[in-house]
Amino acid sequence: MRITEVIITPIAIPDVPLANTKGVHPSVFLRAIIEVKTDTGITGLGEAYGAKRTLTGLQTVAPLLEGLDPYDLRALRRRIETALPDGGGVNAPTALADHKVVDVVYSAFEIALLDIRGKEVGRPLYDLLGGAVRKTIPFGGYLFYKFAKQDMTFGPDIMGEVMTPDALVDQAKQFSKDYGFRSWKLKGGVLEPDLEIETMLKLRETFPDHPLRIDPMGAWTVPTAKRVADALDGVLEYLEDPCRGMDAMAELSALIDMPLATNLVVVEFEQIIEAVKKDAVQIVLSDHHYWRGATGAVHLGEICRAANLGVSMHSNSHLGISLAAMCHVAAATPNLTFDCDTHYPWSSKEIIKGGRPTFKNGTLQVPDGPGLGVELDHESIAELHTLYNKAMVKDRDDTDEMLKYVPNYERKVPRW
Amino acid sequence: MRITEVIITPIAIPDVPLANTKGVHPSVFLRAIIEVKTDTGITGLGEAYGAKRTLTGLQTVAPLLEGLDPYDLRALRRRIETALPDGGGVNAPTALADHKVVDVVYSAFEIALLDIRGKEVGRPLYDLLGGAVRKTIPFGGYLFYKFAKQDMTFGPDIMGEVMTPDALVDQAKQFSKDYGFRSWKLKGGVLEPDLEIETMLKLRETFPDHPLRIDPMGAWTVPTAKRVADALDGVLEYLEDPCRGMDAMAELSALIDMPLATNLVVVEFEQIIEAVKKDAVQIVLSDHHYWRGATGAVHLGEICRAANLGVSMHSNSHLGISLAAMCHVAAATPNLTFDCDTHYPWSSKEIIKGGRPTFKNGTLQVPDGPGLGVELDHESIAELHTLYNKAMVKDRDDTDEMLKYVPNYERKVPRW
Repeated sequence: MRITEVIITPIAIPDVPLANTKGVHPSVFLRAIIEVKTDTGITGLGEAYGAKRTLTGLQTVAPLLEGLDPYDLRALRRRIETALPDGGGVNAPTALADHKVVDVVYSAFEIALLDIRGKEVGRPLYDLLGGAVRKTIPFGGYLFYKFAKQDMTFGPDIMGEVMTPDALVDQAKQFSKDYGFRSWKLKGGVLEPDLEIETMLKLRETFPDHPLRIDPMGAWTVPTAKRVADALDGVLEYLEDPCRGMDAMAELSALIDMPLATNLVVVEFEQIIEAVKKDAVQIVLSDHHYWRGATGAVHLGEICRAANLGVSMHSNSHLGISLAAMCHVAAATPNLTFDCDTHYPWSSKEIIKGGRPTFKNGTLQVPDGPGLGVELDHESIAELHTLYNKAMVKDRDDTDEMLKYVPNYERKVPRW
Repeated sequence: MRITEVIITPIAIPDVPLANTKGVHPSVFLRAIIEVKTDTGITGLGEAYGAKRTLTGLQTVAPLLEGLDPYDLRALRRRIETALPDGGGVNAPTALADHKVVDVVYSAFEIALLDIRGKEVGRPLYDLLGGAVRKTIPFGGYLFYKFAKQDMTFGPDIMGEVMTPDALVDQAKQFSKDYGFRSWKLKGGVLEPDLEIETMLKLRETFPDHPLRIDPMGAWTVPTAKRVADALDGVLEYLEDPCRGMDAMAELSALIDMPLATNLVVVEFEQIIEAVKKDAVQIVLSDHHYWRGATGAVHLGEICRAANLGVSMHSNSHLGISLAAMCHVAAATPNLTFDCDTHYPWSSKEIIKGGRPTFKNGTLQVPDGPGLGVELDHESIAELHTLYNKAMVKDRDDTDEMLKYVPNYERKVPRW
């Protein structure tokens, strides 16, 4: 079995102005849809970041995959490394989507190749990862402070302005009603820390049994993070990326009992070892989009088990192919014991046949396959590709976008 | 696809009196041959230790695998853990074969299940592990001090007594002629350390370009090991298990530059983390028989890469199913950059169709599959099973056996 053709389709999906410490989501988010065709008539699917650097990487590699055996993941890796000689490492101080392009491009194609293999043998993807330890995948509600959307050119707003603790709790109530989520994560680092503490305490009051997390994306100094951790002691299940950098995380970790999670300071396997030596974090966020695909994410689980680290799951804005892959990875990662993150409720489009899957009590059933268990809705892809061509956005810059809402906005890390 | 039947056949293979620091090999070595049958008519093969504790574990688990889906490795693990509640951990101070029975039993069945999957899709086993980075697998010559065999009931001797440096070099010359090995490993801890140093220096003189190793199985104190390392500085590619215990290895490691390898202090994934924290070893020996099968061995490679540890491959006395599996694992472990160990030349029997594979310049070609790429020779199995029933040996005890040669022998760790 050989690969005969690879199609990369950039698409744009209407987004809403979700705030984070770097700024705010632009009016669309970008994804790249991957179709890998074989001489046996099977097509494997993938979904990756769609911003410029990833898209260029995918497009550079795509023609070089002709003739590749979908089982040969190591040859896939070699071809990508050769094609993108400057694509390794995590030195870029920008969004994760722009980091380590080799891993991101590899991850995107790896999923498509596993999808092919699963389809060939009539098996769900999780079976190629060692089998499912769970088929019901719990997701947490991902809460954001947000602006009311001003520019409706590309799509409507969802839930209007949310810039106070009370409004945030209302957002959670709405999500609880619509999706039944049983845990909450707040994207923090947006308001004054005291307001974010107040928000978490109000969430606790309203949802006494829901595990709670906050992720300020490194917005706090160590003393600020310590103050927040003390104020929320016994309230949070973990604190995600309170400070920027491995050493700041280690410094904080030594001062508090609350577990620290990360998708910023540990994004490479080598960094797990460094984190363990420094006792910088206790939980690592998995994500098949950059942890070397689904097999890499399963490796991550194994390494974390050996290192006595917990495993949770990270999310960027995404659609149904990614969502299906996330479910398969979660099914096949025994020690992924926290509810997975997902941005999914923050868009209303879908690119897979059958439309948007329905959450029940915050959970999804992992698709039964074969492979990922999803098929492309080509009409929807065409529509969102047209939007991609129409939208002037070809990269993601949350800081630039923020200036439309707060003209004197300045990006600072740490902010408080 | 479901498992319908599992057959475990213990066999005994004529062995020769190879010496190590714990004693000497008995007149036969024991293996367990595993056949896993499915409702699709496929049979998967495995080969495991045949000593009492492993055999009992395999026999206990075998009937419980009926109905299992060969893809579901996690359910396999759960069934074994349930069936062998006291089989975990590495606390037994005996041979590795007796360690952590759950991992050993899991490993044996895992290979058989991967063999089934490979046969089902017509793919070599290495393809199920991510693809082969090499198809020519280099093995090193495994040199032993040995007695001349006294009891020929079960089979002839190979190469007579080898108890001096010169005789050991002659052994290497013979192996060089017969197998073309390009590197040597000496099972040390048998003679006085000065004689073993002399042996290695004579090997270096005779084979100036062959990488050299010595493995005294923890026979030395830290000062003795330091003395040997100093005397062999620039001569050895690595020193394997010179001292007993993680802390002694760490103490030695801090005193010398020579890399330390191990298959004794790091035999669990958790111990890799401990070894890294203590900088106790620089190279870990892989072995699909106890590192949770072939997928576990590939995980091991990934973890070692992340931890900046080298990977080599361990061997016990074995036959052709294990040899094939070792080749597939070596093919699929990119950072396995040392020649693999193998006891294979020390027996002359085979249980696979086509007989014994031929080494060329010390290398073997990984079988092309499907699966492991080997088939059982049932006649040979029957003969060796008869030998198993005839031989009074049902366990391995090198110290007991040694008393036949050296009546006042006493087991000591460390010895020097």
